[in-house]
Amino acid sequence: MIRFECDYNTGAHPAILQRLLETNEEQTPGYGEDPYCESARKKIRALCQNETVDVHFLMGGTQTNLTVIAAVLRPWQGVLCADTGHINVHESGAIEATGHKVLPLPSRNGKISAGQVQAALEAHWKDENHEHTVQPGMVFLAYPTENGTLYSREELTALSDVCRRFHLPLYLDGARLGYGLAANGGDLSLADLTKLCDVFYIGGTKIGALFGEAVVISSDTLKPDFRYLMKQRGGMLAKGRLLGLQFDTLLEEDRYGTISRHAVRLARMIHDAFAQKGISFLYPSPTNQQFPILSKGQQAFLSRKYAFCPWEPVDENHDAVRFCTSWSTREEDVQALLADIAQMECP
Amino acid sequence: MIRFECDYNTGAHPAILQRLLETNEEQTPGYGEDPYCESARKKIRALCQNETVDVHFLMGGTQTNLTVIAAVLRPWQGVLCADTGHINVHESGAIEATGHKVLPLPSRNGKISAGQVQAALEAHWKDENHEHTVQPGMVFLAYPTENGTLYSREELTALSDVCRRFHLPLYLDGARLGYGLAANGGDLSLADLTKLCDVFYIGGTKIGALFGEAVVISSDTLKPDFRYLMKQRGGMLAKGRLLGLQFDTLLEEDRYGTISRHAVRLARMIHDAFAQKGISFLYPSPTNQQFPILSKGQQAFLSRKYAFCPWEPVDENHDAVRFCTSWSTREEDVQALLADIAQMECP
Amino acid sequence: MIRFECDYNTGAHPAILQRLLETNEEQTPGYGEDPYCESARKKIRALCQNETVDVHFLMGGTQTNLTVIAAVLRPWQGVLCADTGHINVHESGAIEATGHKVLPLPSRNGKISAGQVQAALEAHWKDENHEHTVQPGMVFLAYPTENGTLYSREELTALSDVCRRFHLPLYLDGARLGYGLAANGGDLSLADLTKLCDVFYIGGTKIGALFGEAVVISSDTLKPDFRYLMKQRGGMLAKGRLLGLQFDTLLEEDRYGTISRHAVRLARMIHDAFAQKGISFLYPSPTNQQFPILSKGQQAFLSRKYAFCPWEPVDENHDAVRFCTSWSTREEDVQALLADIAQMECP
Amino acid sequence: MIRFECDYNTGAHPAILQRLLETNEEQTPGYGEDPYCESARKKIRALCQNETVDVHFLMGGTQTNLTVIAAVLRPWQGVLCADTGHINVHESGAIEATGHKVLPLPSRNGKISAGQVQAALEAHWKDENHEHTVQPGMVFLAYPTENGTLYSREELTALSDVCRRFHLPLYLDGARLGYGLAANGGDLSLADLTKLCDVFYIGGTKIGALFGEAVVISSDTLKPDFRYLMKQRGGMLAKGRLLGLQFDTLLEEDRYGTISRHAVRLARMIHDAFAQKGISFLYPSPTNQQFPILSKGQQAFLSRKYAFCPWEPVDENHDAVRFCTSWSTREEDVQALLADIAQMECP
Repeated sequence: MIRFECDYNTGAHPAILQRLLETNEEQTPGYGEDPYCESARKKIRALCQNETVDVHFLMGGTQTNLTVIAAVLRPWQGVLCADTGHINVHESGAIEATGHKVLPLPSRNGKISAGQVQAALEAHWKDENHEHTVQPGMVFLAYPTENGTLYSREELTALSDVCRRFHLPLYLDGARLGYGLAANGGDLSLADLTKLCDVFYIGGTKIGALFGEAVVISSDTLKPDFRYLMKQRGGMLAKGRLLGLQFDTLLEEDRYGTISRHAVRLARMIHDAFAQKGISFLYPSPTNQQFPILSKGQQAFLSRKYAFCPWEPVDENHDAVRFCTSWSTREEDVQALLADIAQMECP
Repeated sequence: MIRFECDYNTGAHPAILQRLLETNEEQTPGYGEDPYCESARKKIRALCQNETVDVHFLMGGTQTNLTVIAAVLRPWQGVLCADTGHINVHESGAIEATGHKVLPLPSRNGKISAGQVQAALEAHWKDENHEHTVQPGMVFLAYPTENGTLYSREELTALSDVCRRFHLPLYLDGARLGYGLAANGGDLSLADLTKLCDVFYIGGTKIGALFGEAVVISSDTLKPDFRYLMKQRGGMLAKGRLLGLQFDTLLEEDRYGTISRHAVRLARMIHDAFAQKGISFLYPSPTNQQFPILSKGQQAFLSRKYAFCPWEPVDENHDAVRFCTSWSTREEDVQALLADIAQMECP
Repeated sequence: MIRFECDYNTGAHPAILQRLLETNEEQTPGYGEDPYCESARKKIRALCQNETVDVHFLMGGTQTNLTVIAAVLRPWQGVLCADTGHINVHESGAIEATGHKVLPLPSRNGKISAGQVQAALEAHWKDENHEHTVQPGMVFLAYPTENGTLYSREELTALSDVCRRFHLPLYLDGARLGYGLAANGGDLSLADLTKLCDVFYIGGTKIGALFGEAVVISSDTLKPDFRYLMKQRGGMLAKGRLLGLQFDTLLEEDRYGTISRHAVRLARMIHDAFAQKGISFLYPSPTNQQFPILSKGQQAFLSRKYAFCPWEPVDENHDAVRFCTSWSTREEDVQALLADIAQMECP
Repeated sequence: MIRFECDYNTGAHPAILQRLLETNEEQTPGYGEDPYCESARKKIRALCQNETVDVHFLMGGTQTNLTVIAAVLRPWQGVLCADTGHINVHESGAIEATGHKVLPLPSRNGKISAGQVQAALEAHWKDENHEHTVQPGMVFLAYPTENGTLYSREELTALSDVCRRFHLPLYLDGARLGYGLAANGGDLSLADLTKLCDVFYIGGTKIGALFGEAVVISSDTLKPDFRYLMKQRGGMLAKGRLLGLQFDTLLEEDRYGTISRHAVRLARMIHDAFAQKGISFLYPSPTNQQFPILSKGQQAFLSRKYAFCPWEPVDENHDAVRFCTSWSTREEDVQALLADIAQMECP
């Protein structure tokens, strides 16, 4: 079985393992205060073109989302996001468990617009009884979205503008950030995100690390005391070196970019193979996730050799499914898939 | 500088890194449902002599404590523990953040007794206004305690008996469990803990793993739905294989026992060296943490070459300090320390 | 200005005030353990035709909802309800503040169906990754709904059946319960609710009391320890007598029924007056809330003398508005309104 | 049986009931936005000699404490208080249920000192690992304390100074505030409290109201959005007029002061009667609660005619007990008690 069902089914970039081996016996201080974390922070600040951002390392996406959101919001506030947002649908109520309502907005290809956010805020504040409803206190976006799509610089700038006009922190979940930065047509850089967002994270788990996410806080008001909350929510890794070392390794010699581009290129090949057969897609994704709409027969045909992910029914005979590539996907596996797609029956 | 200040300042047992290397490209399902986790579970069930316990893997101690305690308690309940308990003093209010009061009892050498627990429960239930106070809903113990000491089988049996009489789950934090199992005079086995406790964890972070704790649930009422809470609290590692593989490796060929005994033996050597100089100890610890009471001068003398941990002032001129050994402590480093202790001035 | 905008804008039934005066100097135990509470409990048990239900008194609807829901759910569970449900839209995130997600279902006239609940439960349990989503742990209904509509006995029985098949407690918010019991076409009694629900409340604030809601728990598993949570959430009134006395007074001589029927009769008169003019309604409400769809001009005309509540825009020139009657609405005020409706211009 | 066991066992000052009767049919806006609330706010601002304080009305003490504390603290902060503080011992974990640890300090006669607070803050901030412990985020005091004692102006000023130096809001629980203001030797006024505290409340439930507490917020940073939290925590009374009317009535013609002085005068008489018999007291209380230490025989003798409250054992044959007077205590009942105390056997 060749597996395309997710982007976290293998280990880490070999350079990371190599370095874990080399440093295994070094004695370092715990909890993120070691030289590896410091070195990784330095690299991130350089990439963000901002020497004053705070950088913290956490272990996974849900943990990062719940810690950041709990740090940002006051008790009567909620977080605006796409109805397809990970925090709304796939984190077992992690945000609500911190006491806050997720305020979903209807999404289009996984995205929400500045106009929607503005309308939601205006509706809240002009409601005479707004104190009887949850006050929107921040905006959550994913980049790429859970549907593989991207906000353009124009779209993100508009969202950022609305947020600033209403004094709402803007938070961007970058679980697959590398794949977004590497995508054709993506026009946003880390430096842009640093400017446009108040806090975001650079995903490691899905892009070359064993685990780990790097939180970048550019808003001065959100910086103080974040480490208390990391500890309180169980996210302060004792051997913090492991996180610093991984990001330090991924961010040297442009490894993060290189492996992200690799995944995106392979995903594009899969996309094109399907498209050539006249297959349509649920979302127009330029990143490492592709959502072709296949007939039951086509699914059966491909599933003999390939694992992929059921996504959602489209009509009685067709479902959207998900194929993911990742930094570790092998070109030969994709070539095999392309050959089989070419063989696939299309009415 | 030779470091004895904590037991989590290096990487992992070489066998773990070796196996991470070997398996790095394997594609496995995520979230703890891979063959490595399954194999580790099997080994743990065998060691616990109980084929029906549930075993889950989490990443660190605070995360484990908050997840287990939130799973056990109802909203109006709190957790009884020693006032020196980690959950009471060193987890940044992690338990309270889940909505529950920590109910500290005065401790002796880090321990509480069955009599204290019984008295607390009787006091609660005979109080006419008990509904105005927090209902004790479980008991938390650490083994070894935060002070390095151990409950005897008799003490733990008495505690377990009280808990069962009052229908209170008993939870044991085993962050340093191996060092307790390996200690001279310790008379409890994993099978005993499985019988006497309702849930406990086998610590990996401080005993040979990069990170990781294995939760063992023997109480049938606590088993259902635990994975929801792991996900919700950010503790369900995407690449769950990493946790399974580590425990699988530690628990094969008695590695966990071997490296624990190593640490305890070295700690004993340090203890004896201090004792021979007439130094007394804050707690009578038979495990990997030692708490000698040193004069300012002695501290200054030793701190030129060795890192150790300030603990608490004893009198104007003396403080208790902490020396830790671990699975990775080198015998030659201990020998160097012993030589210097022998040189240390004692009035 | 004659006010029809809500049903809680006056004080209490005169019999309540009279009795407060008579008993003002009596010394009674606090916290709901006085003879007045006991007498009210007895009356409620008789009306519910169930001598074993637990009855508790709380002060308001949001407080009741959050206390009951926090008592029922485990930390990884959420509450299914209509998207128009009060807990979803008008309680400032009170449920999320207890750590639980509200799981809204699309509603029709404020109602959800047994089929919808069943489908939601089946979808959850057949999802391979259900542990990554919030587990539905109870169902919340309002009777009457926030839109003034009623579940029929058949509908509620079907909902109750689904809940029992899936072991989900069913909770019914009866903030306006009297108006539902008094409505034409309503075919449910307190005894029915006691049988079909696991817990519900009899609203006092909107039906003759100064404040107060009576929680009726019929499920044995939900009975223990509820008073702890009342105290913890700030809902255990020191002078509990005030709540018992009010319900005791409302439930003697069928006062609760009489004043509810009064409100429903007046609401029907308003309904018919609008209908006679060809006005249509947003929801088919047989209870004390009416939602006529009026043109801007009609609204302007009526608002010169009457206060009513904006509800939602229907088209550019029309909005649904809300007229409420209550136990204290005066017939002469309704007659005045009827006369003006008759004068109202209709194109 | 004549009852001295608590100060909330009767109804309300007759002037309040009278006014409830007179206004019962008035139609007013809900949720604290009516003219009665406005009038009460005006009176409170005048008494506080501060026209800019925010004033909100809540229903009871636990509700007030949990709402204020949840509004003040950030998620990683806790509240410093006396170990005898109501929030630490008698509110069923209400504060922890909002996610925050109560940080108790050893008390003397129910009081803590500026020195203790300063020491706790210094200890926190100089701890290298302070991020692993709960950050003190505010200070909670009661005035009078739960033991009936008072902070002097000097003591409260010192506490306020420490709090301001460390940027910690100071919150004062005034459940029995009137009895403190009325006490002999008390040297603090409402205007003083407004200046020295950031937020405090004026208790109504125990001083002449059916129920109700008036929160006074003088700190500008704590003012915004408080009403959201009132609603979310179930504390926004629908018929808010009831709260405004009660405080408006209590604060006109100095009723609050008059009835408080009455209670304090009677308590003093009880105190002196005991003292004259050589009885000693657990705490030196100048307010409406008295804590004489009585032998078992004396308790038996008095309990034939009088209800009082067991407090705590002192030695094998003696217990401290509590006698409370209140605004509604009748002088003739106290005279009866005095006569019996005079008859009481004293060895």
